[in-house]
Amino acid sequence: MHETTQPRQLSLNAFIYPSGHHEAAWRHADSAPDRIYDVSYYQEIGRTAEAAKFDAVFFADGPALRQNVKHYAAPGLEPITLLTAIAAATTHLGLIATASTTYYEPYNLARLFSSLDHISGGRAGWNIVTTGTDLAAANFGLAKHPDHAERYSRAREFVDAVVALWDSWEDDAIVLDTESGIYADPDKIHEINYVGRHLRVRGPFNSARTPQGHPVLVQAGASNDGRSFAGQYAEAIFTAHQRLEDAQAFYSDIKARAASFGRNPEHVKILPGISPFIADTEAEAKALEREFNELTVPAYGLGQLRNLVGKDLDHLDLDGPVPVELFGDAGDVTDNSRSRLQVIAGIVQREKPTVRGLLHRLAGARGHRVFVGTPEQVADTIEEWFTKGAADGFNVMPPYYPGGLEVFAKTVVPILQERGLFRTEYTGTTLRDHFGLPRPESQFAGRAAAAQ
Amino acid sequence: MHETTQPRQLSLNAFIYPSGHHEAAWRHADSAPDRIYDVSYYQEIGRTAEAAKFDAVFFADGPALRQNVKHYAAPGLEPITLLTAIAAATTHLGLIATASTTYYEPYNLARLFSSLDHISGGRAGWNIVTTGTDLAAANFGLAKHPDHAERYSRAREFVDAVVALWDSWEDDAIVLDTESGIYADPDKIHEINYVGRHLRVRGPFNSARTPQGHPVLVQAGASNDGRSFAGQYAEAIFTAHQRLEDAQAFYSDIKARAASFGRNPEHVKILPGISPFIADTEAEAKALEREFNELTVPAYGLGQLRNLVGKDLDHLDLDGPVPVELFGDAGDVTDNSRSRLQVIAGIVQREKPTVRGLLHRLAGARGHRVFVGTPEQVADTIEEWFTKGAADGFNVMPPYYPGGLEVFAKTVVPILQERGLFRTEYTGTTLRDHFGLPRPESQFAGRAAAAQ
Ligand SMILES: Cc1cc2nc3c(=O)[nH]c(=O)nc-3n(C[C@H](O)[C@H](O)[C@H](O)COP(=O)(O)O)c2cc1C
Ligand SMILES: Cc1cc2nc3c(=O)[nH]c(=O)nc-3n(C[C@H](O)[C@H](O)[C@H](O)COP(=O)(O)O)c2cc1C
Repeated sequence: MHETTQPRQLSLNAFIYPSGHHEAAWRHADSAPDRIYDVSYYQEIGRTAEAAKFDAVFFADGPALRQNVKHYAAPGLEPITLLTAIAAATTHLGLIATASTTYYEPYNLARLFSSLDHISGGRAGWNIVTTGTDLAAANFGLAKHPDHAERYSRAREFVDAVVALWDSWEDDAIVLDTESGIYADPDKIHEINYVGRHLRVRGPFNSARTPQGHPVLVQAGASNDGRSFAGQYAEAIFTAHQRLEDAQAFYSDIKARAASFGRNPEHVKILPGISPFIADTEAEAKALEREFNELTVPAYGLGQLRNLVGKDLDHLDLDGPVPVELFGDAGDVTDNSRSRLQVIAGIVQREKPTVRGLLHRLAGARGHRVFVGTPEQVADTIEEWFTKGAADGFNVMPPYYPGGLEVFAKTVVPILQERGLFRTEYTGTTLRDHFGLPRPESQFAGRAAAAQ
Repeated sequence: MHETTQPRQLSLNAFIYPSGHHEAAWRHADSAPDRIYDVSYYQEIGRTAEAAKFDAVFFADGPALRQNVKHYAAPGLEPITLLTAIAAATTHLGLIATASTTYYEPYNLARLFSSLDHISGGRAGWNIVTTGTDLAAANFGLAKHPDHAERYSRAREFVDAVVALWDSWEDDAIVLDTESGIYADPDKIHEINYVGRHLRVRGPFNSARTPQGHPVLVQAGASNDGRSFAGQYAEAIFTAHQRLEDAQAFYSDIKARAASFGRNPEHVKILPGISPFIADTEAEAKALEREFNELTVPAYGLGQLRNLVGKDLDHLDLDGPVPVELFGDAGDVTDNSRSRLQVIAGIVQREKPTVRGLLHRLAGARGHRVFVGTPEQVADTIEEWFTKGAADGFNVMPPYYPGGLEVFAKTVVPILQERGLFRTEYTGTTLRDHFGLPRPESQFAGRAAAAQ
């Protein structure tokens, strides 16, 4: 008998939001909003994800108080420190944090992620964003949020500089010869002398190359600039789609872009979000979703929608239809989150919901796909998207934590494992191992160092 | 019998340098330079410090590759992430990281320390520095390191803005009323609207107030600007003195400055560095120090000294006297590390060492006080400085790690405990508890929020 080759495997991330991705989750008895500042809560979630053999956990982030916290239990802890604490409580789980190229300095951010990669033994990933909210600007002394194109222009320079810093110590720079008194080989430690339009960084970095060569580069933008950036740089991409055909179109677009940059498209993992309400029967799952929707506070949902469309919505009748003109010129009103607006406009066109209905729809996972059904049905839709060229895996967004992750781990993961789609044991120790990504060589390998 | 009131207690920090504070420690068999990137190494050191009831561990930092790593095992991990990992391995130990007001953005740094304070249950401290090395500038796109006065001017604004961010959620801002759907009280969350000459920060912060109110503010500058800053802001001060009388003068100067700002001088802890070579007999301790000095690489020591004085030193005869003019105009050559230069100039004047002798002297702990003796003698000098108005405690700088901390913990700490000078159990759980510092009230407590 021949060993069969390993079939293509799903990747699964747990996208952690303190009380869950449903905006009213914090009001539900199955969430734990009193533990939002309690590190052991996140360490427990990390251990649940690791026991279920998830590739990674993931945190979103932005340097501003974005949500209206009167009615919303917003995240409070900084993701890189939080992931460091989760690293200490786990051994294999990947650890992905979002951080902004618009509101950070490359040298500082490079150090944080490098350190996380060293501390975790090669489990770090960086979700590169240009920051969606213009509220951040005033926290950094800027009169306005830089516009979309400027942000992506800086993002490119930022990533180039950060990767060069990470590469600046070649893998074998540390000699550690106590006898002769040589600790490191200066010829293998390089100034990067990065000079861009936005950024200048000399280097070298003040730390050795990390276990993964460098942390995995993740990305989550879907505009044309965002996709182009993703095709060139991203090793994993988080994305939001409601429908199989949209996800397929996105999937092949990104893979083609990656190929056009000379990259192997298999080294670009595309991971749509899915927020599953799971119960033994479909009816129970629907009832569960309804329970959460009934806990929403309309004033909160309207405020979120107003921020997105940039128009006052107070006059709207909750039980009337959503006016079509709300999204008519959305692309011009705000350059943030264009792709999310398009997703919502699609929902409105197809489903013609009432205002309250749309708010419930968005309450689920901010435009990500909410799926309501039995464990088999969740596994079926995951398998369908995975096998039909729409996804290499999923960013699982439990509507409520910790229970929503536990039920997924207990009921959906075993089905995916039985079908041979998902690992039953980790086969490696780094996030690159889990995602099936190569360890990059230093761009300076073999190059002579600048005279010192 | 009456309970005696608790006599004044020493504070002890362990200043962690990967292989130890002696520059050649990494070459010595009792150090572990192969573990510099291994988080469990630091977690073990943290547990040693906690078992000995130290107040805190402390990391220095700078955003540049400063040392000549050809001959020196430089630190490689970023301190805030590293302390987060140590937090996960300990329960009481304070956690102090150095970070720069010159090369960070206040919103980002405020988040990292706030998160560390939440994650550790109130054990974070921030050693506020303006960054000694001008090598940092080129890593942040600056043509030159801002001058000393400018750096301290920005430092004041930076700390004002960061503390305001930390204060911007009042302690009782989170309501968590799931019934009515009120998570937080917007009247207790404040924009800070900080406008300075260097910085503008609107706020509010995106995280709740921390267990300590805010992390402990630590400082380590000794110039006139540095002392003035310390008197106004610092709750603990790290300092370097060779002689009792210099330490006494510094101590009373800082306490007087604190009082002049209307502060309680007892809430400003002054902690000189001490780097002890400890052995059963004085002769053995001296032999141990010699062992380390003989491992130094003169090219390395000369390079460090050249950086400090800003003059070429290659022509110097290692066995000749140190030319006095080397420090003649030091204050003008470089505005960094003026206080350290003064310390070294004092050594040269008093001790008239050879060049090699001076390099050995500095190899110990970069100008900090090296003390060579038995456990009793180390305890005696600590007690003398503590009772004679020179120190409220010490920043212990073991010449080699991990052994140098272990021997201090095993032999010196018990003597200090027997003498009633140092705790045998923690009496609180936060760094403020250990240092005997009050928990500050939010500056916004009771103030009406800005209209939202
Ligand atoms: C799963 C997912 C997570 C995201 N997380 C963040 C985040 O944490 N912070 C942020 O500023 N933007 C986040 N975004 C938004 C994107 O980075 C980007 O700003 C948005 O998709 C608009 O990008 P575009 O203009 O390229 O379409 C996320 C998007 C997705 C799909
Ligand atoms: C114990 C101790 C630790 C220090 N750690 C750092 C450090 O980590 N990073 C740094 O840039 N400066 C550090 N310094 C230097 C001071 O912050 C300051 O730059 C130096 O003392 C000169 O300050 P002054 O100009 O006010 O005298 C340290 C000083 C002492 C005494």
